[in-house]
Amino acid sequence: MRGKIQHKSFYNWAGCTIGGSNHEAAKIARESLQPFVGPSTSSVLGYQGCVKSDAQHAALFNGIASHVHDFDDTHLKTIIHPSGPVCSALLAYAEWKRPVSGRDFIVALVAGIEVECKVGLAVWPNHYDIGWHITGTTGSIGAAAAVGKLMGLDVPAMQHAIGIAATQVVGLRDMFGSHTKSFHPGRAAQCGLLSAILASNGYTSSMQALESKRGWANVVSTSNDLSDQVNSLGKTWEISENAFKPFPCGIVCHPIIDGCIQLHRELKNAGIDVSEVEDIQAKVHPLVLELTGKRQPQDGLQGKFSVYHSGAVGLVYAKAGVAQYADSAVKDALVVNIRDKMQATADSNLRADEAILTVTVKGGRQFEKHIHHAVGSLEVPMTNEQLEEKFKDQAMLVLGDAKVVDRASVACWNLESAQDVAEIASVL
Amino acid sequence: MRGKIQHKSFYNWAGCTIGGSNHEAAKIARESLQPFVGPSTSSVLGYQGCVKSDAQHAALFNGIASHVHDFDDTHLKTIIHPSGPVCSALLAYAEWKRPVSGRDFIVALVAGIEVECKVGLAVWPNHYDIGWHITGTTGSIGAAAAVGKLMGLDVPAMQHAIGIAATQVVGLRDMFGSHTKSFHPGRAAQCGLLSAILASNGYTSSMQALESKRGWANVVSTSNDLSDQVNSLGKTWEISENAFKPFPCGIVCHPIIDGCIQLHRELKNAGIDVSEVEDIQAKVHPLVLELTGKRQPQDGLQGKFSVYHSGAVGLVYAKAGVAQYADSAVKDALVVNIRDKMQATADSNLRADEAILTVTVKGGRQFEKHIHHAVGSLEVPMTNEQLEEKFKDQAMLVLGDAKVVDRASVACWNLESAQDVAEIASVL
Repeated sequence: MRGKIQHKSFYNWAGCTIGGSNHEAAKIARESLQPFVGPSTSSVLGYQGCVKSDAQHAALFNGIASHVHDFDDTHLKTIIHPSGPVCSALLAYAEWKRPVSGRDFIVALVAGIEVECKVGLAVWPNHYDIGWHITGTTGSIGAAAAVGKLMGLDVPAMQHAIGIAATQVVGLRDMFGSHTKSFHPGRAAQCGLLSAILASNGYTSSMQALESKRGWANVVSTSNDLSDQVNSLGKTWEISENAFKPFPCGIVCHPIIDGCIQLHRELKNAGIDVSEVEDIQAKVHPLVLELTGKRQPQDGLQGKFSVYHSGAVGLVYAKAGVAQYADSAVKDALVVNIRDKMQATADSNLRADEAILTVTVKGGRQFEKHIHHAVGSLEVPMTNEQLEEKFKDQAMLVLGDAKVVDRASVACWNLESAQDVAEIASVL
Repeated sequence: MRGKIQHKSFYNWAGCTIGGSNHEAAKIARESLQPFVGPSTSSVLGYQGCVKSDAQHAALFNGIASHVHDFDDTHLKTIIHPSGPVCSALLAYAEWKRPVSGRDFIVALVAGIEVECKVGLAVWPNHYDIGWHITGTTGSIGAAAAVGKLMGLDVPAMQHAIGIAATQVVGLRDMFGSHTKSFHPGRAAQCGLLSAILASNGYTSSMQALESKRGWANVVSTSNDLSDQVNSLGKTWEISENAFKPFPCGIVCHPIIDGCIQLHRELKNAGIDVSEVEDIQAKVHPLVLELTGKRQPQDGLQGKFSVYHSGAVGLVYAKAGVAQYADSAVKDALVVNIRDKMQATADSNLRADEAILTVTVKGGRQFEKHIHHAVGSLEVPMTNEQLEEKFKDQAMLVLGDAKVVDRASVACWNLESAQDVAEIASVL
């Protein structure tokens, strides 16, 4: 049971959450808030083989970890990262109130993502332009809907839950570049879970929290088409447009990386070592150089803003994962050597997700690659195998044991058949 | 040590928090979230003689209770209720990290309220007009500044704390009339405390979270004068314009209640029982009848929107506290009798805080009272004695023991001389 978008969404979330769990932001949050953690019911993924926490904190910690490498899923029409808030809240709840079946979990996951993306679409793009980080601001609403669905809230209680979530508007774009960016989906998960719990116990909110004159949509945006979006619930499915990033760097670098990874394999098939590469010419959309034109990145974060580094790790290692953006990776002699041989030229005839690469090796032989749509786009989605490699690469960096990683991967793919989702978490 | 505005602010907050602690909203929050409460360090005021909780939840619970009767303090220029978020966060922190002296606590309290009200003024009135509940939205920032001050954060850490708080924008006005209104100052207290804790441990946010192009002030309001307000910090003191409500109902009823309480005393001094009252004529600003013209309130909440009920309890009991807005109070035969004898007439020559009352008793004797400014206004602030009566009336309803209430009152007045603020909390 893999390959459906809902399975991929959960699987990718779990891998990213494990992968992000030892990032500094996730660590500081866990350690700072340890004095407040209540009775342990719910897993904090990845970290030291999965420590447990109360459900509220587990939702926060997992939500932070899920987003901290900017490697999570993207609803491309709104650039919401939908699974972080929803899955983080759901898993924490499902372990607290076990047993929750995989099927029920998935229904709730889809419900949460649909609500999250529809309310996001309703205020897009004004809301984002004003300065809201839409993943956080819609995430609490989506998480509340998801947990409310799992609880089986009746309509009025669900309205209250959505209202309590809507009044907690988390996320300014001004936080981009700081730890607080990943705080947003974490806090959104926690706010949504909190809202559903309060509402299920009779805590009241507005019954028109989203749509009223002074409701969420009018307050957080200068225009909205909320009623159209709400009417489209269950007719058009937003989760089906969820995309997964193959590489934890700006999306404009993805065509180059995709091309370089394919060229790595072609060189290998031709019996040519990467050390024999003498020249790399790349034609790219002008935005690529504008955003990621850094020639000599000094650390991993700068590496994410270097198309040269990104291409080089692809060509050298056929990978551009979290490990390839570690601080040490930008100093790697093999990578530096290839990076320095690469030239990129802006070509405004190319689309942003297009690139043309020409590699020249010793003796003058040339290899060309034209990427029409980068892997991870809706046109060329990541395959199950690519998602699995992404999951395992991330999980290995944290868990360090291939058998454990394999078990975790299998458990996550098999979400839908789980009798008790908590058993999956125990494997993670 | 009483009578300074900072002492009054804390004292009034404590009384309101004890008084609100057995309201349904406060109870549901406490009971719903009990499964998540961590190691107990900090007091949840009032409730069952002060149960303890972790500091995060104590801040939330006390913040909810402080506002739930709409009886807390008001910074009249912005209608922010400043003490709820700030004091709830500070007390929770001070008990967790004891000992904190009363003096340090007060310095932090003033710092928090200044920051909260200055950022509020910066975006007033657009922010409120858009639909934000300004007590919540500025409260998290004020609470973060207050706790950060108590922690002794350096400037960059304080910037991060304010940033993490600013990204959590809690409070839509659409929630007015529901439990979620009082959730706002509670969640703001918790968000502010959380922000200071995270920042003190190195969690980063934007360093220009309030003022940048996509910072808080620009995102939550269509115009602002943030730099002017920030420049006035420490020059004009917002806390000095903090006002205290003598009665837990809409402020437009206050002149009538004030007048009726004074008339109760005059009748008593003249040896006249209230049962001898035959007629009451009130002249009021037109807004009074528009907002609070309900003739036959059916429950306590409706009583708050009845100038007739409000005047009647004042004349009968010389009080209009929480008890006088209980559901039973609107059925009280003495009150109903007086209420039915009262006529109110709109007079647009009167100010909103002005009223003229004429009471006619058996035999035709008349008593008149012209209230120029209602008690609780900046012109006629509540005296220490009135604040003490308010505190004790609220506390008695919850604690039920006059000696305990007296001890609590003395302890709260003596905040500034406390070596360890936790000792005050233990008396509450």
